[in-house]
Amino acid sequence: MMSRREGNADLRVDGTKLLEQLRELGEVGADQVAGGRTRIALTDDEKAGRDLVVQWMHELELDVRIDRIGNVFGTLRSEGDDGSQAPLMIGSHIDTVKNAGALDGCYGVLAGLAVARAFRQADMKPGRSITIGAFTNEEGVRYQPDMMGSLVYAGGLSVEEALATIGTDGTRLSDELERIGYAGDLEPGSIVPHEYLELHIEQGPVLEAENKLIGVVENLQGISWQKVTIQGNANHAGTTPMRLRHDAGWVASAIVTFLRDLANASEGTTLATVGSLRVEPDLINVIPRKATLTVDLRDPDELRLQAAEQRLAAFLEKVAAQEGVKISTERLVRFEPVVFDTTLADEIEASAEQFGFTHRRMTSGAGHDAQMIARIAPSAMIFVPSRGGVSHNPREHTDDDQLINGAQVLLDVVLRRIGADSIMNQLYERG
Amino acid sequence: MMSRREGNADLRVDGTKLLEQLRELGEVGADQVAGGRTRIALTDDEKAGRDLVVQWMHELELDVRIDRIGNVFGTLRSEGDDGSQAPLMIGSHIDTVKNAGALDGCYGVLAGLAVARAFRQADMKPGRSITIGAFTNEEGVRYQPDMMGSLVYAGGLSVEEALATIGTDGTRLSDELERIGYAGDLEPGSIVPHEYLELHIEQGPVLEAENKLIGVVENLQGISWQKVTIQGNANHAGTTPMRLRHDAGWVASAIVTFLRDLANASEGTTLATVGSLRVEPDLINVIPRKATLTVDLRDPDELRLQAAEQRLAAFLEKVAAQEGVKISTERLVRFEPVVFDTTLADEIEASAEQFGFTHRRMTSGAGHDAQMIARIAPSAMIFVPSRGGVSHNPREHTDDDQLINGAQVLLDVVLRRIGADSIMNQLYERG
Repeated sequence: MMSRREGNADLRVDGTKLLEQLRELGEVGADQVAGGRTRIALTDDEKAGRDLVVQWMHELELDVRIDRIGNVFGTLRSEGDDGSQAPLMIGSHIDTVKNAGALDGCYGVLAGLAVARAFRQADMKPGRSITIGAFTNEEGVRYQPDMMGSLVYAGGLSVEEALATIGTDGTRLSDELERIGYAGDLEPGSIVPHEYLELHIEQGPVLEAENKLIGVVENLQGISWQKVTIQGNANHAGTTPMRLRHDAGWVASAIVTFLRDLANASEGTTLATVGSLRVEPDLINVIPRKATLTVDLRDPDELRLQAAEQRLAAFLEKVAAQEGVKISTERLVRFEPVVFDTTLADEIEASAEQFGFTHRRMTSGAGHDAQMIARIAPSAMIFVPSRGGVSHNPREHTDDDQLINGAQVLLDVVLRRIGADSIMNQLYERG
Repeated sequence: MMSRREGNADLRVDGTKLLEQLRELGEVGADQVAGGRTRIALTDDEKAGRDLVVQWMHELELDVRIDRIGNVFGTLRSEGDDGSQAPLMIGSHIDTVKNAGALDGCYGVLAGLAVARAFRQADMKPGRSITIGAFTNEEGVRYQPDMMGSLVYAGGLSVEEALATIGTDGTRLSDELERIGYAGDLEPGSIVPHEYLELHIEQGPVLEAENKLIGVVENLQGISWQKVTIQGNANHAGTTPMRLRHDAGWVASAIVTFLRDLANASEGTTLATVGSLRVEPDLINVIPRKATLTVDLRDPDELRLQAAEQRLAAFLEKVAAQEGVKISTERLVRFEPVVFDTTLADEIEASAEQFGFTHRRMTSGAGHDAQMIARIAPSAMIFVPSRGGVSHNPREHTDDDQLINGAQVLLDVVLRRIGADSIMNQLYERG
């Protein structure tokens, strides 16, 4: 097998083709006025995106399979694979939020195709089969939870339960999956990857701010989402002395400022955000009777995340007693932090180093399919910079050369893990 | 005129009739399910309320006049009045907010009728003509500004401008006024009151909390309403370090907590309320790009009110620089504090004392027609307790005996100011 290392030099990412496919897929569901594209899971526009990716998989002569939750897989077989080999999987998603950029998710899937293309163009086969996956409904806009396809694939949610999901528009997921022709027969999770890699834009400002080209993602934050409801008393703003108020809006604001202090006290590991905040009756001269807000807490360390949750709970109890209001909380989402595979992270770092790309170890702040697949296979992620940290927005942008750099690292890590056999060598070896 | 003081003993408020009329007017526009009533200015239901009040004025043989902005006046003439005498005016309003209580405004108008009725029942005439006024659109729900009828009457807004007002439902005020038949011909303000009295429920918790029956309202807070708009950056809650955020929602909350501190530091004179607060895009995992909030500042002292506005402005400047956001403010309403007439306030206090009613000097936290009429005539207000401080709500409540107490004080103050002549005495005097 000496041929493998020597053969690697022939394998190159076709950057032009990758950028062309990103543009072409980005046109599907595009809104020329708003400048973004909308391919919400299992809509007609998302079906068109799937059709395009499947067509490209066929052009690369991949073995295309669809599973029961609609995950799409294209496999480039190794020479010896009779279909039973655990593949190295490269995955992400092609569904989008409303009015999205062209890169979130799509970049990871199309870079996977670029890896397969590199083998095809060099007329080589991978030392282990490579499967490129596009997971269903990562964004969770229409059907909750998000990261659904990979969650089902990893066994975290039964396929029956997922298929029965009713969308925000009243549709049943299984009906829409049938309708667009992507209700496959493969049992989700029946093919357990040997290892899993996901290349993604950072969707945050860290790499850009620190002028790094490659993020070696070694873990992913735990996420705690709660809805907090505060019940106070509505009273006249002009006639109610401050000391007699039970102001739900003030309590909501005190929680917001408390959370900032809590995050700052963590020295950067805990993030805390109140993204949604509403008061009732929402009138200028009426002290808010009710306030609802959401709390988004994140930390890469489970114990620290729990400590943040506990500090918030203690504050809610204290402020409720102090202000004479009732506070209730509802847990919306809770994911423990994910620690990615050290070996894979080391390989990514070594690869970036070899190419001379500036790099840093980092934590993924956003959720990704990789966190689900990490439950069943060694996984890691590669990040490239996002200009201004902007994502879920038409202004989402990564420079072309940065996109190609990331795909080069992905291909290189694949080669480091499984190697390549030239067809000629294989013929020699057989002969 | 010795007869006046002697005659006063015969003048009594018919408490039963007053309560009966409060109930009957409270039925107009009532919602049996919600328990409240809705008579928004110049709607069919409010016309029905006006018709009832005008009918009652005719029953008392008052001289009924309607002015061009729809203010309704019923005058009980003194013996010598040829129509040129400046009357003592008793006023308030009968329009309501949505789903209101039965007392706000109506109590003052119907207590005015109770005063006139006391003269009629005793077969006496007032020493000076008494005009009972029901001012158009005090609440300002459909047409802004509020207190419109009294504002126009006092010359603070031209009648033409007021008539041209377009409502929240797209209607033109003058059209609606014509439609309900209350576009009168009297020029607003052509009759300048000699003095003005307004009896009102407190709409606040102070009298109840201190167990007082009568509020001697010596002044009315200045009001400063602003809309504050904060423009930050929307970023991903999971990927944006705290130090790189420009969180419009956090800034809004910091303003809310700053205002509480500002009010508390004033030792009770300044009130500060944020009644409306909205964030955009209002999504759980997106740092708010934009926040809008309203600021309601009140103080009975103009210099202190200005100081509060200045401290807020300085804070906005500081926090905008610190957080890297843009903050703009829009002035919505600004009324200077009103100091009521000392002589009238003293008379109210003396009257409460004479009846043995517990009382206290106080500031009106809410706006009232009296603050407008105070621009053109010596004015003062009498408050009675509001249970729980609740108003603008079907739960608005004042005990029956407290309502009658208030009307008794009103009648007594009227008698203290203008006296009464018995018809018999008048006949004797003529004879």
